[in-house]
Amino acid sequence: MSRVGVIGVGHGRFGRRSDATVQELAFEAFRAALQDAGIERKELDASIIAAVPEYHKQRSVAGVVQEYLNLNPLPTWLTEAACAAGSAAVRTAWMAIKSGLHQVVAVIGCQKMTELATADILALMGRVGEVQWESVFGTTFPGYYAMFATRHMHDYGTTHDQLLQVAVKNHHYGAQNPNALFQKEVTLEKAREGEPVASPFCVYDCCANADGAACVILASEDRARALSKKTVWLDGLGCATASMSVLRRPHLTGLPSAVGAVQQAYRMAGVTAKDIKVADVHDCFTIAEIMAYEDLGFCEKGQGGRYIEEKRSYIGGGGVAINVDGGLKAKGHPIGTTGVSMTYEVVKQLRGECGPRQVPDADIGLTHNVGGIGQYCFVHVYKRD
Amino acid sequence: MSRVGVIGVGHGRFGRRSDATVQELAFEAFRAALQDAGIERKELDASIIAAVPEYHKQRSVAGVVQEYLNLNPLPTWLTEAACAAGSAAVRTAWMAIKSGLHQVVAVIGCQKMTELATADILALMGRVGEVQWESVFGTTFPGYYAMFATRHMHDYGTTHDQLLQVAVKNHHYGAQNPNALFQKEVTLEKAREGEPVASPFCVYDCCANADGAACVILASEDRARALSKKTVWLDGLGCATASMSVLRRPHLTGLPSAVGAVQQAYRMAGVTAKDIKVADVHDCFTIAEIMAYEDLGFCEKGQGGRYIEEKRSYIGGGGVAINVDGGLKAKGHPIGTTGVSMTYEVVKQLRGECGPRQVPDADIGLTHNVGGIGQYCFVHVYKRD
Repeated sequence: MSRVGVIGVGHGRFGRRSDATVQELAFEAFRAALQDAGIERKELDASIIAAVPEYHKQRSVAGVVQEYLNLNPLPTWLTEAACAAGSAAVRTAWMAIKSGLHQVVAVIGCQKMTELATADILALMGRVGEVQWESVFGTTFPGYYAMFATRHMHDYGTTHDQLLQVAVKNHHYGAQNPNALFQKEVTLEKAREGEPVASPFCVYDCCANADGAACVILASEDRARALSKKTVWLDGLGCATASMSVLRRPHLTGLPSAVGAVQQAYRMAGVTAKDIKVADVHDCFTIAEIMAYEDLGFCEKGQGGRYIEEKRSYIGGGGVAINVDGGLKAKGHPIGTTGVSMTYEVVKQLRGECGPRQVPDADIGLTHNVGGIGQYCFVHVYKRD
Repeated sequence: MSRVGVIGVGHGRFGRRSDATVQELAFEAFRAALQDAGIERKELDASIIAAVPEYHKQRSVAGVVQEYLNLNPLPTWLTEAACAAGSAAVRTAWMAIKSGLHQVVAVIGCQKMTELATADILALMGRVGEVQWESVFGTTFPGYYAMFATRHMHDYGTTHDQLLQVAVKNHHYGAQNPNALFQKEVTLEKAREGEPVASPFCVYDCCANADGAACVILASEDRARALSKKTVWLDGLGCATASMSVLRRPHLTGLPSAVGAVQQAYRMAGVTAKDIKVADVHDCFTIAEIMAYEDLGFCEKGQGGRYIEEKRSYIGGGGVAINVDGGLKAKGHPIGTTGVSMTYEVVKQLRGECGPRQVPDADIGLTHNVGGIGQYCFVHVYKRD
């Protein structure tokens, strides 16, 4: 079976990017990825664009990006799976190559989040939950995850301090990531004083909206071996869904979609949770990272709070090094871009290029990208040669 | 090379569907497609959803559809390429199967267009053109195509009567299609009296917004042969893009993306324009169908007006039978659904199931689905056994 690999990655700065349109953000990341791959535009066969378009003034995002990147007349279209749009695009590119239709495909996550007023963003995000039966009663995005947190605390004794320790870790690493929105440390004491958002969450439990773009270039095994000496292989893919209505979920202390997706990805890649050295997981809220520890099999169910309290998800902590780029919490969360940004980080880690944030002996890595409130989850397993 | 085929199709009624949510529309089409295929839900591996989400109150459309169709935990995500979203989904499903990742995939186009006020819809549609340099000057969707029409008239002597004859034909066939929004004939005399929209267009030059859904089920050759005796094969795929800014187009009398896409699709399927017996083409405005005749090679450049005037695109007219389901013009245009609806019609024609609208000896058919103002075009070629 021939493989599909990542031959180049690029990443722009996340933040309030009023200096750039969505196509200009895309170009920053795209140019960096081409340079990283050491290839020219003419090697590409197609692009897949990840974005959640309703946050943009500009619609038909794939079209405007394709033109600005001078990629006409190559094929392009957009994928969307709420906050997992980026991973849906990586999966689509993998399929495009594996199907034989294309050989080299650029995946570009590009998202503006700050063109709308905050209240409008919150209203849009609430509609990522079920509109007919749930959001009419006032559910918000933080409110959904706050319910998950409350139930996790109730069932497993997880504490708010444990939740906040996720934020402390991710800000610690974000402070070392020049692309992150927040590049400063946060102490547990400081985090405890955060303004309340949705009980039990304060602001330090919540990731921040940000503009930003990232790009990864995938190639068939033949083309990858011809073009690159540092290919990282995408060997395991998983995608699963769960009911959007939380009232139909079997429980609220984890994401059934994540459990399903990771089982597929591990099986396809021939690995288990024990083989993973580094992972970028979807920490839109602190509880989401704790649930990910458990859903991905890095610890037993209910032990996620202890896992972070014991600093096992730090580099050298004895567990899997998680979100050592700062995660959504410190990098910011340009929703269409996030899955591509995760891929960028894991590829850089597997290539040993992360400097002070490098995870030792990182040979197998994973991305875990959740859409909405867990109605989608995409898990990808990467290996170096 | 193994093939990928369509084993089942379903189509709901297009129109102002205030009786149904987007997931209910999806279910109508999905249930019909399962029944048509003679399979149960458990045969499916995944779904791909086509929609343009910003017209909906409900976001995360793929998630809500997947739940309502009882397809959790199967993978799903959404594709968007403006009005070509449906064909992007068919292409994605083809790739999913051909890559070996999935065997049987449901493609569901589902679109609400009437939840928003007409003025808001027009504003959103204007943003499908280039926002930074064009739509700020007041370009609208009809305005773009009116420019194409004006130039076509100038360069080739195309007349407004010829444009309106496209509408006359499509309403003629729409009157025989129980799923169409408009099921009545329109005479040329009546069409000439239409209210002006954007010179030279009157209302009869323009398709209408509609809600609606369609579903097609694709399968690998192995699974198709096991499950179905009436598979129609998707043997040629083409996708190309052009600049979104019309100011950067080489000309305004056709779509470079359509020319690029059809060349790919003909080559891949091993056919030429002469082999096509039936086609569904993207007649969002009357000029768009005339440009399609030319871009797809059904007639010489500039002869599109004459092609319809001579009724060559009618059944038995001596040319390719085009939009004999009524096209966007008479069926209505639920933008994310349209590409799937086109696929439905071509499959039904190739199976010989179109009753009074049946094209004789329809063995090879084509869909031509344009996104936005031609920044995307997808062409698919279908064959029966």
